[in-house]
Amino acid sequence: MNNYYGSKMLTLIEELSRLPGIGQKSAGRLAFHIIAMSKERVKDLANAIVEAKENICYCEKCCTVTDDIFCPICKDGKREQNMIMVVEDSRDMAAYERIGEFKGLYHILHGAISPLMGVGPNDIKVKELLTRIQKENIDEIILATNPNIEGEATAMYISKLTKPLGVKTTRIAHGVPVGGDLEYVDEVTLSRALQGRLEL
Amino acid sequence: MNNYYGSKMLTLIEELSRLPGIGQKSAGRLAFHIIAMSKERVKDLANAIVEAKENICYCEKCCTVTDDIFCPICKDGKREQNMIMVVEDSRDMAAYERIGEFKGLYHILHGAISPLMGVGPNDIKVKELLTRIQKENIDEIILATNPNIEGEATAMYISKLTKPLGVKTTRIAHGVPVGGDLEYVDEVTLSRALQGRLEL
Repeated sequence: MNNYYGSKMLTLIEELSRLPGIGQKSAGRLAFHIIAMSKERVKDLANAIVEAKENICYCEKCCTVTDDIFCPICKDGKREQNMIMVVEDSRDMAAYERIGEFKGLYHILHGAISPLMGVGPNDIKVKELLTRIQKENIDEIILATNPNIEGEATAMYISKLTKPLGVKTTRIAHGVPVGGDLEYVDEVTLSRALQGRLEL
Repeated sequence: MNNYYGSKMLTLIEELSRLPGIGQKSAGRLAFHIIAMSKERVKDLANAIVEAKENICYCEKCCTVTDDIFCPICKDGKREQNMIMVVEDSRDMAAYERIGEFKGLYHILHGAISPLMGVGPNDIKVKELLTRIQKENIDEIILATNPNIEGEATAMYISKLTKPLGVKTTRIAHGVPVGGDLEYVDEVTLSRALQGRLEL
């Protein structure tokens, strides 16, 4: 990129354009927005970035990304302590938290088993899940890994380990997404929706 | 927003989501990308933000956003010193720089005259432009303000001041955009394209 604005702006634009989903043009727009912000707000932004990075750690219970020994959900005594929803990453947890229907605890695997990508069962937080099942009084494990090959394989793998422990192990339902058009739904989903049909 | 990740991540997501074009979801994605970056890269990003803000100033000649007394273009002795392209902001200058066809100097107005928004001729860098015309040896002023009401009014206003100074004053051409479809071009543009027709 040519240097029209001087080196400081150029550095900022380059740094911003390295972030995911931000191209050169968006980076330019963001950079101009940043230099138009007040000095305090710019410092707040820069501090938030450094502080988040410096203080980030995994919750000792559910392994989610947080900045304390336990995350806000594990610390919340009002959550049902006998149910664990297993998800691939913290953002999946946030997605379920946004609908606010699940009141139990989570367990974050930080990935899914993927032989192609060289990710085995020991590379994700499966061992930690099994330890929790043994230590905590868990009645149900809900497997909410992604509905793709890696997520399905991971769910299968975990269910084979948890069922012998006597824990009810469930998988979130596959089916046609609400609001969609049947015509555009893929064949595998249509088939799974048919298999999983419920009596009204 | 609920606090799933702890306060540091929440602060970072909130700061990021205040930036233009970044919603809650993108901010979450960016925040997770940032905490996954190396400590050095995170510091570089935070420093770039603070450094750009702290060092930013206007070029004393063309008024563009830069971090030195003169911007890289005004400092470049190889540019044609007798032509000034007048644009509304630094990003418009960058847009013309990217095509690399204009070899003269720029003048950045930092806005356009807009009575509705309360922006008058004294709120943009018109005075600075007139001073340059008197001090520098300028043969032509190219008015490249935006092709909207404010930009046209600003171009008209400036041309009325520069023409009496004996400087050739031109406006970038209006017409049908290259690669477009005539059918979808608005009426005013079609009319301007007809008026501005050139003999082949």
